[in-house]
Amino acid sequence: MKLESYVGGRWVKGRGVGRDLMNPTNGDVLGQVDATGIDPHAALAHARDVGGPALRALTFAQRGDLLRQIAEVLSANRAEYAEIARLNSGNTGVDAAIDIDGAIGTLKVYARIGKSLGDVRLIMEPGHEALSRDGGFGAGHILTSRTGAALHINAFNFPAWGLWEKVAVALLSGVGAVAKPASATAWLSHQMVRDVVEAGILPQGALSLVCGAGEELLDALQPFDHLAFTGSSGTAARLRAHPNVLAAAPRINIEADSVNATILGPDARPGTAVFDLLVQEADKALSVKAGQLCTNIRRVFVPAPLLDAVRDALAARIDQIAVGDPAEEGVSLGPLVNARQQHAALHGLSRLTEEARVIRGGGVPDRLAGGDRERGAFVAATLLVCEHPDQARFIHEMEVFGPVLTVMPYEAQADAAALAARGGGSLVASVFTNDVEFAAGVAGDIAPYHGRVLIVDESVGKAHTGHAIVMPQCVHGGPGRAGNGQELGGLRGLGFYMQRTAVQGSPVILERLRSMAAEGTV
Amino acid sequence: MKLESYVGGRWVKGRGVGRDLMNPTNGDVLGQVDATGIDPHAALAHARDVGGPALRALTFAQRGDLLRQIAEVLSANRAEYAEIARLNSGNTGVDAAIDIDGAIGTLKVYARIGKSLGDVRLIMEPGHEALSRDGGFGAGHILTSRTGAALHINAFNFPAWGLWEKVAVALLSGVGAVAKPASATAWLSHQMVRDVVEAGILPQGALSLVCGAGEELLDALQPFDHLAFTGSSGTAARLRAHPNVLAAAPRINIEADSVNATILGPDARPGTAVFDLLVQEADKALSVKAGQLCTNIRRVFVPAPLLDAVRDALAARIDQIAVGDPAEEGVSLGPLVNARQQHAALHGLSRLTEEARVIRGGGVPDRLAGGDRERGAFVAATLLVCEHPDQARFIHEMEVFGPVLTVMPYEAQADAAALAARGGGSLVASVFTNDVEFAAGVAGDIAPYHGRVLIVDESVGKAHTGHAIVMPQCVHGGPGRAGNGQELGGLRGLGFYMQRTAVQGSPVILERLRSMAAEGTV
Repeated sequence: MKLESYVGGRWVKGRGVGRDLMNPTNGDVLGQVDATGIDPHAALAHARDVGGPALRALTFAQRGDLLRQIAEVLSANRAEYAEIARLNSGNTGVDAAIDIDGAIGTLKVYARIGKSLGDVRLIMEPGHEALSRDGGFGAGHILTSRTGAALHINAFNFPAWGLWEKVAVALLSGVGAVAKPASATAWLSHQMVRDVVEAGILPQGALSLVCGAGEELLDALQPFDHLAFTGSSGTAARLRAHPNVLAAAPRINIEADSVNATILGPDARPGTAVFDLLVQEADKALSVKAGQLCTNIRRVFVPAPLLDAVRDALAARIDQIAVGDPAEEGVSLGPLVNARQQHAALHGLSRLTEEARVIRGGGVPDRLAGGDRERGAFVAATLLVCEHPDQARFIHEMEVFGPVLTVMPYEAQADAAALAARGGGSLVASVFTNDVEFAAGVAGDIAPYHGRVLIVDESVGKAHTGHAIVMPQCVHGGPGRAGNGQELGGLRGLGFYMQRTAVQGSPVILERLRSMAAEGTV
Repeated sequence: MKLESYVGGRWVKGRGVGRDLMNPTNGDVLGQVDATGIDPHAALAHARDVGGPALRALTFAQRGDLLRQIAEVLSANRAEYAEIARLNSGNTGVDAAIDIDGAIGTLKVYARIGKSLGDVRLIMEPGHEALSRDGGFGAGHILTSRTGAALHINAFNFPAWGLWEKVAVALLSGVGAVAKPASATAWLSHQMVRDVVEAGILPQGALSLVCGAGEELLDALQPFDHLAFTGSSGTAARLRAHPNVLAAAPRINIEADSVNATILGPDARPGTAVFDLLVQEADKALSVKAGQLCTNIRRVFVPAPLLDAVRDALAARIDQIAVGDPAEEGVSLGPLVNARQQHAALHGLSRLTEEARVIRGGGVPDRLAGGDRERGAFVAATLLVCEHPDQARFIHEMEVFGPVLTVMPYEAQADAAALAARGGGSLVASVFTNDVEFAAGVAGDIAPYHGRVLIVDESVGKAHTGHAIVMPQCVHGGPGRAGNGQELGGLRGLGFYMQRTAVQGSPVILERLRSMAAEGTV
């Protein structure tokens, strides 16, 4: 099997040898991925000149209906996707569901947003700015679809959700997209796009897919294009410094490294519901998707007197985690995505252990429930304790992309917030407490450093959506190290693909525009 | 006179020779500007670590009151500033008023916004996202002040307004600012800051000023800082590619070149009020501030049958423009800011004449009403006609920063919009028509390429604020060539200096945050 790319409205084979797609559970080669010879300029021009105009000829409601249809096709093929996710990503059933159902759910939310915007192509922000004393001259702000293409460069850990959370927003905004999945796990993205193409849902040029190395796509970006990237801060820095990215200066959104924190409130003593909720959430961070979520908990700050209790509770949980072949009954921790990621995680872990003690795990697991210890990419669920987080650096700044977290003590509320901020900008932090004043205080202090803050009290124990789960209704992205980006957040996500324009004029013309627009704000 | 810089809470002299401040009317040397030896790291750290925390200790209402006090100080010294503007910028009274009163007006608008936000430090966006079926778990979005510094690099043409429109928004957001005015016209910025410092209004570190070359300030930027730049696209490209700007990746906002268009509707025949309104506005573009406004009309698109009439009406207006020493009675067109800008404008003009015919002007004026023709930096009010704008390139892409505009014919409505878009992204376009459908259609078509669209019908003939005037209630900035930035726009302007964070939790915690916040959206 060699994955093809979908460019210019047809499936094209790369002309090179390409790169192997691997099964990270046992090292088997599953196929190849290769985009050699694909013309990046033609690929982006197709989105820009064919896909964009076709989408913009539709209303928001019609574009939303396309998303609904995509969600239906994906739902119908769910089982096949889960199998690909197991083979190519080492996903357990739970892991695959987060990726695939996350994609379907996000498409459905944006389908509903399209429907609610209705049969218009404009958005007008609420409010009227009077600019003359007599009220005869004023201004409003409208949002119109930008006319460039969207280039989406995605991360290996979410071949389904990462693809569709970006595509859904671009298409609803009226912008044609070229998606480039990470080569390592491109199979799932490829199969999904193939199914959607075969279903004949989208207009020509609305969605293209480049499977394989795609650095040359950057050469084809133009000033009105959009570059949305999810991945490492190292790659992000390379993208930003690319000569044509600097010259063309397209809009850029980056979602990069994030060393996310969770904070336990002083009220959450052992035996309380909130204590158990934090332990449960941290436990998930050590198994779900083998810890390969940008939003995963990496640092756990607990009141100093509770450090031992949290450590012991988590250690006991880890002892219950079965690691191995995700196809095996009871396995909750599969392999990392490939040997390269395994090596990177083990290397990162070695830096963390300069500042923290290993309580559990700390390397390749000794025993596996299926899977190949040598050829597979397994990393043990690893619990570290760092006694002096104020003196640590790697713990706060190094994102070890695997099932690894560090528990640390804090003294006062301000210390907890300051330690969380040491991440230098993160996607998400969570606070576990029943104390509203503690929660509100910490949330206010850490918000400037985070794109999302989850507050868990016992009332939301069953209902909350989790530290790591990105909800399309909420913005996703973080400042600083996390890339300074913002995606999703309901209507807010459309802001990246639309131009805000102040319109000044008489009440008559402003009313006429309002009659052509949905009211909303990005 | 050698301008000092205000850094670290004191006035500091540069240790170098510096650059001459000139009077562009006669070439006299007025003084020197020099920032040699100023520590850029200390300057930004003072804003970040002293000014920011002091501002964030205040509420929005309190910060707004600081802006009100600044506006009062500036109002009290208005006459002195106009004199500096005449000497150092060659400003007429009208020119100086636009800059100085624009600054005061913008400060007052943001003072009022601060007052209306009230005695809180948080903004919470309207709306609640239900994330569980029972309503027990949901989300809201809050905005908190970012903790970095703001570095403002300003353009020479607005030493007053450019300074304060950026500073007002940063201070109201709770972010300390370091302003670097363009050296050529730094005198006015310097005097204003000196008066504000002497009035003792601002907390330590809230505002610093670097007069002189300030490229080294870029080396001191950190990830949570903000870089707001107004100037040429060439300098903008250099800033974006600066190694530390790439490495630290602060938030960046750029306002650069803009070849703004105005469109006359087919209904606006000679003799109609709308025809006269366009001629009046284009006439202003040929005298006010000697055409040195980023928002100035550069291209005038008129229905082909009306080309001659518009040309003749404008030529007649130009014949009434007295160019010369701005101190002379009746002079409405002063010099450009210096010889370098004069040379650049004349060079640009020579490119435009490859594609267009000169109707009036076209170089250094033959006769002056005062001022020195050799040592001054005068450029004649220049009217060009380009018969085939679809075949032109420089006309659409080259911003000649002086009293120069080109009149061009269009056939159909779609052509007018397409020609305006050939600017590749502009700050502002205007449409002169009484035809609501024409106006709404063109506005929708050109909005993706513009930050602002002004629509003038006869009902707003007296009330409208003008093509070139930036109102603080409306966003300012444009896509593509114009830099892809956005400033002002009332509350929207604060978005650059604040972090949006999704907060997920129970109704109790979300209500608690709402009680600490003003409602608003950026």
